[in-house]
Amino acid sequence: MTVIAPRSGTAFRLAQGATLEVIDVDGCQVSDLLAYNAADVREVISNGRTFDYEETLKLSAGNTLWSNRSNPMLDIVRDDVGCHDFLLTPCSEDTFRHFYPDRPIHRGCFGNLAEALAPYGIAEDDIPCAFNVFMNVPVDGSSGRISVDPPVSKAGDVLRLRARMDLVIGLTACSAYASNGGTFKPIGYRVLDDAAAA
Amino acid sequence: MTVIAPRSGTAFRLAQGATLEVIDVDGCQVSDLLAYNAADVREVISNGRTFDYEETLKLSAGNTLWSNRSNPMLDIVRDDVGCHDFLLTPCSEDTFRHFYPDRPIHRGCFGNLAEALAPYGIAEDDIPCAFNVFMNVPVDGSSGRISVDPPVSKAGDVLRLRARMDLVIGLTACSAYASNGGTFKPIGYRVLDDAAAA
Repeated sequence: MTVIAPRSGTAFRLAQGATLEVIDVDGCQVSDLLAYNAADVREVISNGRTFDYEETLKLSAGNTLWSNRSNPMLDIVRDDVGCHDFLLTPCSEDTFRHFYPDRPIHRGCFGNLAEALAPYGIAEDDIPCAFNVFMNVPVDGSSGRISVDPPVSKAGDVLRLRARMDLVIGLTACSAYASNGGTFKPIGYRVLDDAAAA
Repeated sequence: MTVIAPRSGTAFRLAQGATLEVIDVDGCQVSDLLAYNAADVREVISNGRTFDYEETLKLSAGNTLWSNRSNPMLDIVRDDVGCHDFLLTPCSEDTFRHFYPDRPIHRGCFGNLAEALAPYGIAEDDIPCAFNVFMNVPVDGSSGRISVDPPVSKAGDVLRLRARMDLVIGLTACSAYASNGGTFKPIGYRVLDDAAAA
């Protein structure tokens, strides 16, 4: 297992057919996940296309994450938690100023993703809504109100996603105060080949 | 009033301080709205930033539409309907193939927006989730399921948005079967100066 240190991020290639396992090492932590077509990084994960094709905001095992060009990027093949978010953009210096004006500013998942993805030719403006693994954002269907609650994930819980094309993945251990219940913890990940993921 | 013909779209500049009025001419029609910073079209309307800062999926008078760079783009200053969508991407050839495999394919709002925005240097991959004026997408908060229901807007209902920066606007009369209850109707719009919008 590779460990992403608290409040940091990384990027790596994920080959078509390989399975990415995201691990909540200590429990109650969020990991922002981005995916780009490795052959053309202008193709990127899209919350709107995914909501449209999957016809739900709650994505779990059996669902697919789609690109802005309507191609399948990642299939969710195992989900120990069943609670993730695809509504919200990564935390950033601006969101820290907005939500936590009296607390230290951090570049957040946005800054961590921007630095990690830059070597792949991906600019800040190319960062859309992330798929926020383990993030707990209840929606009140009637009022539309959303909140950011502590994750329900426990130590060792995993989410597995199988790549439908060659991808560049961005992945973080989240930096915001609210999204992880005020604690900053690491996130683990592994890349499994077909046999290991079966 | 300028009329956008059924299943078509347009683009135009909207100066900071001006108010855009979107009019459902015949009722029960949807208009996909995009907004770009006229000084740098890499800055664009963002559903995720908006959901984050407004803390709701239901955007109406008093709410602001935010950009991917965390700047306010449009304030909603009048809303006769109170039912719009910011979850879904514009309908496209791919969504027609997916949802209506037995019916004629149309380039949809996506194709209409892409053609209208091209003269401003905006490419297809720069089209994010639109703010879908009058679109009726109920959310079941518990299951996460979403559906696309006919709009509740009536003939003459309007939405007014005030520009917080100089913008390029993309605007359509929607082309999809489900979003407007199976009818294809025009959409009207007007640009009001401060005095007319007061």
